[in-house]
Amino acid sequence: MRLPFEITATDPGSRARRGSFLTAHGRIETPTFMTVGTRATVTGLDPADLREVGAQVLLGNTYHLMLRPGIELFRRVGIHRFMNWSGPVLTDSGGYQIFSMTGDRTMHERGARFRSYVDQRMHLLSPELSIEMQTAIGSDIMMVLDECIDSTSDEATTRAAMERTHRWALRSLAARTSESQALFAIVQGGVVPALREESAAFLTQQPFDGFAIGGLAVGDARAQREDVTALSAELLPRDRPRYLMGVGTPPDLVHAMGCGVDMFDCVLPTLLAWQGTAFTSTGRVKVTRAECGRSDAPLDAACACATCKQFSRSYLHHLFKCGEPLGSRLLSKHNLHHYLALMAEARAAIEAGGYAAWAKEKLAAIDRHEHAGGGRA
Amino acid sequence: MRLPFEITATDPGSRARRGSFLTAHGRIETPTFMTVGTRATVTGLDPADLREVGAQVLLGNTYHLMLRPGIELFRRVGIHRFMNWSGPVLTDSGGYQIFSMTGDRTMHERGARFRSYVDQRMHLLSPELSIEMQTAIGSDIMMVLDECIDSTSDEATTRAAMERTHRWALRSLAARTSESQALFAIVQGGVVPALREESAAFLTQQPFDGFAIGGLAVGDARAQREDVTALSAELLPRDRPRYLMGVGTPPDLVHAMGCGVDMFDCVLPTLLAWQGTAFTSTGRVKVTRAECGRSDAPLDAACACATCKQFSRSYLHHLFKCGEPLGSRLLSKHNLHHYLALMAEARAAIEAGGYAAWAKEKLAAIDRHEHAGGGRA
Repeated sequence: MRLPFEITATDPGSRARRGSFLTAHGRIETPTFMTVGTRATVTGLDPADLREVGAQVLLGNTYHLMLRPGIELFRRVGIHRFMNWSGPVLTDSGGYQIFSMTGDRTMHERGARFRSYVDQRMHLLSPELSIEMQTAIGSDIMMVLDECIDSTSDEATTRAAMERTHRWALRSLAARTSESQALFAIVQGGVVPALREESAAFLTQQPFDGFAIGGLAVGDARAQREDVTALSAELLPRDRPRYLMGVGTPPDLVHAMGCGVDMFDCVLPTLLAWQGTAFTSTGRVKVTRAECGRSDAPLDAACACATCKQFSRSYLHHLFKCGEPLGSRLLSKHNLHHYLALMAEARAAIEAGGYAAWAKEKLAAIDRHEHAGGGRA
Repeated sequence: MRLPFEITATDPGSRARRGSFLTAHGRIETPTFMTVGTRATVTGLDPADLREVGAQVLLGNTYHLMLRPGIELFRRVGIHRFMNWSGPVLTDSGGYQIFSMTGDRTMHERGARFRSYVDQRMHLLSPELSIEMQTAIGSDIMMVLDECIDSTSDEATTRAAMERTHRWALRSLAARTSESQALFAIVQGGVVPALREESAAFLTQQPFDGFAIGGLAVGDARAQREDVTALSAELLPRDRPRYLMGVGTPPDLVHAMGCGVDMFDCVLPTLLAWQGTAFTSTGRVKVTRAECGRSDAPLDAACACATCKQFSRSYLHHLFKCGEPLGSRLLSKHNLHHYLALMAEARAAIEAGGYAAWAKEKLAAIDRHEHAGGGRA
């Protein structure tokens, strides 16, 4: 088995590590934040925008892509050519989307049965079909299909879902046909430490290229999420990348990197952008507020992104007030730049051996701005 | 009075002319198509996109901009800095928007009274206020406020509106305070040749920097529009730019350039793009049609735009089917490139002295594709 993950620096004051993961479409410098492009597009942004903000890896979603444009298209052209993105792509398996669905879906040992929002027909997403679909998509990193549950579920439910996730992980490994596409397993077990230990022990016996921590950011409180993250990261082998799925806010990332997590994804920077909220060095800013309409200053004077270099708060306010899509696009670019610059800073801090001090200062600054009225949008 | 318009070539077989018009923000090469950015934004596109498609001049709208963001903002920063566009900007006066309004608006000798869609209050847009607003906006070319009517109105109504437009044109001239901003008058007179002659004779006695042909593309048939365009262009002085407002389709532009028209604007390329329709060298293409979803070819194999170089019809189809705004943006860039490349070709044909032959071939090709099923969307 190939081991494409390399650790180049570790932090003396924390578990943070600096590394890189080699994929068929280039090297990923870790820790990294992956930009969410669910439907083979990061809403409103083209590949030039993504390069400009410093995106390394895009995340697509098997569930959405199997429904539209469908597997036939991906058998002709992979996702890289389809969306004209030459860098690495990770595909999520669809497990989380099926968990999030309201309405017509049932979970079986074979897989998840659900009704398509595109053609209203019933589909079965099995571990094997998810791998077949991800193979056709041609992502650089594939994820096993897992059974997600609410993190407030009782222990019996949590155990049953974890055990099914383990069986599905073995079926996913068996279904894999492409050696050039990495395959990551997903540790489950909710917020029960013993189950997390059991899950990690089981999955790390198998030849996966990396391990994800799943089932967080689904109803859990921040302190609980931090505890489970710290515990789970410690249980995972040092020589494989650790991916914390669906997390999170900047403080979440700073904390998790200190626990030795290498990869993240979250819709927050783009989702909040489309709702008119910007992350800035002095807290969150809602650009639709009247005071933004009167300000000719940039969104964030400390930010080097193209939006802050070119446009004022009053212009962004104007675009949002007019319902003009350029506003959301400019804010998406800013928010992604904010996240990706944070990751670049973190990588530099680990290289310099000063991650623990950097993280402490960063968390204190974010906390200070949130309490000073920047607030949470 | 300065005469910043220079004619550098004329076509022996038509009235087409090649020129340039010097503004405070650079030279406009004519004939030119101006990109519509009504609310200080060309929907979805940033200045880099606009430069990429070859945009020379943007068109903003006084009516919309006075309501939002309002004159106070423009007294602080002009439109160039506001939207980060360093090239020429033309502002329409608001006359056409008030004509197009349904609901609460009345026309008076003082100006147009209407209810704001932003704050529901009554506003009066007078010729003087329109100039004051355009002066604050800082556009390079200002338009006089005119009274627009349906081109199917009776002759008495058409004459009354034309005469008011003349009085308003004189008031606009008197209200002008900035010599660095050009001011264009608007010839009216509906589809009545005698009125068009009277209007042109009156207005061309005044020291305007250019003359527009207004009141077309508002209910008139193509043949009638072509006749009035030919007549009006001939009535306008050779040494000033001629601007045909709100027109039109590619054949409209090709015809009007042959009549000696120098400037155009139209929402069609961007409006159709947001509806999923592309102009191509082989006719219009509706990208939401199922056959586009199965095609890995570019929108237009003969097109050199970034959209055609980077993306397939199936990707554009996918984006539109998902309601993803990147689809409209990529199609807008393509359609604007299509228009702007047509204008560049026309300028080259005039320079080469072969406009008449080029235009004949171009119109025949468009006609052929439209009848071959490319069709009108």
